[in-house]
This record gives sequence, C-alpha cells and structure tokens, in this order.
Amino acid sequence: MNNFQFKNPTKILFRKGQIENLSKEIPENAKVLLLYGGGSIKSNGIYNQIKKAISSFDIVEFGGIPANPEYAVLIDALKIIKDKNITFLLAVGGGSVIDGTKFLAAAALFDGNSPWDILSKNIRTQKGMPFGTVLTLPATGSEMNSGAAITRRETKEKLVMGGPGLFPVFSILDPEVVKSIPQHQISNGLADAFTHVLEQYMTYSVDAKLQDRLAESVMQTLVEVAPAILKDTSDYKASSNFMWSCTLALNGLIQQGVPSDWAIHMMGHELTALFRIDHARTLVIIAGSHYTYNLATKKEKLAQYATRVWNVSEGSVEEKALIGIKKTTEFFQSLGIKTRLSEYTDDYKGTAQIISKRFTERGWLGLGEHGKVTPSDVEKIVEMSY
Amino acid sequence: MNNFQFKNPTKILFRKGQIENLSKEIPENAKVLLLYGGGSIKSNGIYNQIKKAISSFDIVEFGGIPANPEYAVLIDALKIIKDKNITFLLAVGGGSVIDGTKFLAAAALFDGNSPWDILSKNIRTQKGMPFGTVLTLPATGSEMNSGAAITRRETKEKLVMGGPGLFPVFSILDPEVVKSIPQHQISNGLADAFTHVLEQYMTYSVDAKLQDRLAESVMQTLVEVAPAILKDTSDYKASSNFMWSCTLALNGLIQQGVPSDWAIHMMGHELTALFRIDHARTLVIIAGSHYTYNLATKKEKLAQYATRVWNVSEGSVEEKALIGIKKTTEFFQSLGIKTRLSEYTDDYKGTAQIISKRFTERGWLGLGEHGKVTPSDVEKIVEMSY
Repeated sequence: MNNFQFKNPTKILFRKGQIENLSKEIPENAKVLLLYGGGSIKSNGIYNQIKKAISSFDIVEFGGIPANPEYAVLIDALKIIKDKNITFLLAVGGGSVIDGTKFLAAAALFDGNSPWDILSKNIRTQKGMPFGTVLTLPATGSEMNSGAAITRRETKEKLVMGGPGLFPVFSILDPEVVKSIPQHQISNGLADAFTHVLEQYMTYSVDAKLQDRLAESVMQTLVEVAPAILKDTSDYKASSNFMWSCTLALNGLIQQGVPSDWAIHMMGHELTALFRIDHARTLVIIAGSHYTYNLATKKEKLAQYATRVWNVSEGSVEEKALIGIKKTTEFFQSLGIKTRLSEYTDDYKGTAQIISKRFTERGWLGLGEHGKVTPSDVEKIVEMSY
Repeated sequence: MNNFQFKNPTKILFRKGQIENLSKEIPENAKVLLLYGGGSIKSNGIYNQIKKAISSFDIVEFGGIPANPEYAVLIDALKIIKDKNITFLLAVGGGSVIDGTKFLAAAALFDGNSPWDILSKNIRTQKGMPFGTVLTLPATGSEMNSGAAITRRETKEKLVMGGPGLFPVFSILDPEVVKSIPQHQISNGLADAFTHVLEQYMTYSVDAKLQDRLAESVMQTLVEVAPAILKDTSDYKASSNFMWSCTLALNGLIQQGVPSDWAIHMMGHELTALFRIDHARTLVIIAGSHYTYNLATKKEKLAQYATRVWNVSEGSVEEKALIGIKKTTEFFQSLGIKTRLSEYTDDYKGTAQIISKRFTERGWLGLGEHGKVTPSDVEKIVEMSY
C-alpha cells in the first residue's frame, strides 16, 4: 500500500424529502447565490421546494449553467458574486452545476490575474467561498469531492482544477430525485461512476487489498442495480444504491494508497471539448481501447476484476483480462450507450492526431499510472476508439 | 436503505516514518498535553521520535493511561489540563489512550456538574478540546471516529460516550508500528475490528447493497491478512491492510443507512468491567452465542455473510447461517483467542444474572437492531457464553 493523506469534511445528508431542512445547513446571515442548470429543477418541483426552504435568506439566482460548465457563463456568475457581495453558494444540480460552483468558489477568493489561471496553471485552491449542494443527478461524485472540470468553448478546452478548499460544506442527497431523471442521463451516471472506479482501480497491484475490494464493491453494486434503475427510476431501493455508489466512486476513499490512471478522462475530455459528446459517453468510447492497448501493464488487475466483478473463473491471466474488457463494453452497451466514436460523429477522422498534438503542446507527455502513456500512445488509443 | 447523515472530518496521515512531520499538524502556539499508556512507546522508540518532532511546543506529559481507560486516572489528567492551561491534546497509543483522550477533550470544555455525567447521562459533546492521535495499535478505529468507552473500576462500570466534537483533528497511521506489537494484541486488534464490522452488518437487510459489500470487504481483508500478520508482524503489506481495515471498520462509513446491533459490545463491556478481560476477547466470548440465540432474526444476513465472506455455497438459509457462526468462531480461534467465558475465569457463575440485573437497572430493556433483546435474553446469551 502506498502512503496517503485523506480528509473529506463534507457533511452528507442522505434522505428522502429533506430539502425542507436545507436552511439549517446554510450559515446565518449568508447572502446566497442559488446556482442551477437548464431549468429542469423548475419542471420537477425541486426549484420551488428550495426557494421555500431558504426563503429566510437573502438570495440571488443564477440559472443556465450548461452541461460541461462553460467558462464564459461562469464569468457572468462571478461578476454577480462580486457585485452583490455573495457569501455562500448553493448548487442545485448534477456534476456540471456543482463543478461550475466549485470554480466560482475558487475564483471568488482568487487573488491572481485571471481566473482562467486556476485552470490553465492548475492552481490548487486552499480556501474557497463556502458552498453547499443539492444533488439532482447522481454521476460525477462532485458532491463529496474537491475537484471540478470546466470547459472553454472559445478554445475547445476542458481542464480540471481542485484543492482542499473546494469540498462542499454539505450535500443533500435525496434518492427520490432519480425518478425524474431522463433515461439517457441515468445511463450516463452509471457509466460515469463505473469509469471513475476503473480509473482508480485498473492499474497495478500495490497489495492494497482493502482498497481493491472497496472499489470492486462499488462496481458490483452498480452492475447489480443498473437493470432495476433503468427499468423503473422510481425504484427507491435501486436509486438509493445508485446514488450512494456514485458518491463513493469518487469521494477520494477508494483511491487512497493506490496508483490511479485517469488517462481515459484526459482523452475523454478532449472528445467533449471537440464534439460536445456527453462526458460519460466519452469515457465509454475510450475505455475499451485504453485497456486493450495497455493490456501488458494492466492484465493482472483486469484479470482480478474479471474474476471478482464478473465471476470469470477460467482461463489464463490474459484470457481473463480480455474477457474483463469485453464484459465492460457489454455492460456499457446494456445501458444503451454506444461505444465507438464513429457512432457519435461522422467527423471523427483526424481526432487522434488533434488530441495527440494538444497533449504534446500542453506538455502532457506521460499519462497513466506509470506516467508512460505518450502522445503517440494516445494517438493509437483514440484511433482504436473510432 | 435508511436515511443517514455522515460527516467525518478527521485528517488521516497514513504513511511510513512520518512522525517527524507531526509538528505541522498541531496548531501554532498550542500548549500540548502528551498522553500515553503503559510506557511501551518508551521501549519501542516512538516516545523519543515524538518528543523530538514536537520539541518546539510547550509540552506537558501524562503517561500511564491503562487499558480500558480508567475514570480516576483521567480525572488526574483533567486536573493537569486545567492547571496548566492546556489547549491541545496529543494521544499516542491504541484505543484506550485515544478513548481516554476523547473523554478529556469532552471534560475539558464540559460545563456541567460532574464529568461523570458525560458518561452516566450519555451527554453528546458538540465541541471538545482539539486533539490529534498517533496510533500505535490498530484495533478500535477510535483514531477516526468520535466515540469512546471509559471504565470506572470503583463501580465496575464501562460506559460509552461521543459526539461530533470528538473527532480527532488528525491521526497518524504508520503501519511500521505493528512490528513491535505483542502477538496477543495483534489478535485482539483483528478480533476487535472484525466484530465492529459484524455489529454494523449482522442485522437485517434494508437493501443497502453497497454498505453490505463494503462491510464484507473489510471482513474479507481481515481474514485474508490475519495469518500473514500473525506469522510476521514486520510484513508491511499485511500490516498496512490490517491497520486501514481496523480504521474503516469503525469510522462510521459502513454503518450509514443500515441498522446496527451493538448488543455484543454492551454485554462485552460488562465482562471487561467485571473480570478485566481484554475488550476484544469479551466480544469473541459473546458473539457466537448472540448470533445463535438470535438466529431467527439474523439468519438471512448470516447466510449472506457465510456465502460472501466464507464461500459457503450449499445448504438452506439456516444451514448457511449456522456455518457462518461456526466459521466466525473458528476464525477467532485461529487468532489464538479463547471463545468461552469459563476459559478466562473460574468465577463465571452468576455472571449472566449480574449483567441482566444491571441492564434492567440502567433501563436497557431492549438492545439490538430491533430493540428487542431484553435483560432476560441477555441473561440467556451470557449463560450460553460460559
């Protein structure tokens, strides 16, 4: 097991119909900026519940944060935070709204030149403006971690940021929200969370037996509840397991003391930036090729995964590993997700070269758990994903 | 899955030889009370490492906190805290020293009549004096939770306490400490952590699939590393898994959203108070009888446990459940732990009646996940444990 340092101070309120208690979690006398996305919270009733719950506070609203939260939009919100002397941010939404809120929490107290530096120079945020979240879409785990990904359409970039000052003060997780989520977003959530676990698990063994089993637990649970939740989003038993699995997939716990990969995310982010493909689907597009290309360094872990998550009992390490990859692809397909880039765009030719060139330009010369996935490897992996 | 609220702000520093960085974690200008136990930290070198690491602070020492931290001893330490204007507590030890420190953290800021009220009236501590820990004995999980158990020899009582103000600010977990731990304490640690998981798992299903798997992961890991760590305490791979499993067995995570039992602990505490039997061994004495006696309400979970942790694949639910109990007893025996009260004392007769009477007097009329284990049931369970 590797050394690690772990602290996650986010308070989780996991329960049915508890939005009404929201006001107790927000500091007294706070001036609140309520942030949300495209307005689905207005049609499903959550907006009204929230407005009622926090009616005793001085509130400003900022709606319209898009999927893959857009830098230019967030800069508009930042101006409001400064103009209106906001002291607390309340994100109501999924990963995009929460990630956007994290950027604002960082930017609001940032004393550098341009807030873009937080992303382009990957400046860690030690102290951000406090914020809470009401999760409406289980997927990214952003509700209990300190990381975010922000997109800049202007330059077709999607970059990551984070720091210990960016944990939500609280997050309200009410599994009942799942029933109003469209099926394709449920599929995205399942695939996103599953891939988050893979990134922290599918590397090489450091004899971290407990972490391996915790990661496998999250994957097994996602596999087990996927059919139920896709069949009936109002199945509370399935939604609650789905929701908590998404959170634990990326709250930091399973990656303590183990190497992690994240190359799939780095490549996937480019597909979102270039083609605006949903984040989760970009991960699905890359995962199979990435594992096949890196079979030599990942086969032991792939075989363990095949055995423990997919009950594969026969074959050599390599055979089991390959079955593990196949099972993963089939799982994504069972969620109704297409697994090849060419199924999303006709304009895919040359993508591998573009991404490889960008990575070279950014100095991203060695990705993955060994730091050895070069831009040339990236080119081949993306090409295999067409 | 049941509703839950979860927050665990303790910072974990899990690494080899990192005591030297201890001073960075203690607030500047703190006046520190260094607390430890029977002095084993002096013979194994940890004491000197710590004194060196925090030499820049104003330090007072208090050694001699016994196993099952004794109220009268802690009252002496409390006097020092007040007399010397201590502002930060540093616990160096296992669960006893850490639990004792939690009592002091609570008592130091307690404004009631007698600090004994914290225990006898189970007063929750919202704000305690800040404290950190250096764990020298993996077992109780006290290094990452907010609970404690304190013994009062005078009245042969062992009572529990806790509250959100009693999480350690930080805990340093260095698996290298394991190599100097005597074998019987390693066995205790394994049994203690294993039983902690059982108490939060062996109840009834609320369809919390993820929590079940997380609990099973901890148990599987403990079972897997036990032989290695007992054979060679300097096996770092085994000790690191052992140490992290003990912490996660009782840091609150696996009990979120599920019913928990804790009747074994309630009965076990009495055996410690009456006979000074090691805490972990009291749990072992009670566990088998408790599960056998409550087979009717616990058999489904016992069967799942038998299947997943012990790979039992055949038999009815009840048959699997009974094999699960047998496997548990055999596991404890494989650690060199005796499983019956009569193996610890000749004076065991009447114990069941004494404990049952005490529970009645305290108004503990219904223990366990259903609140239905009566003093009369307790009497029978303890009797079965002779």
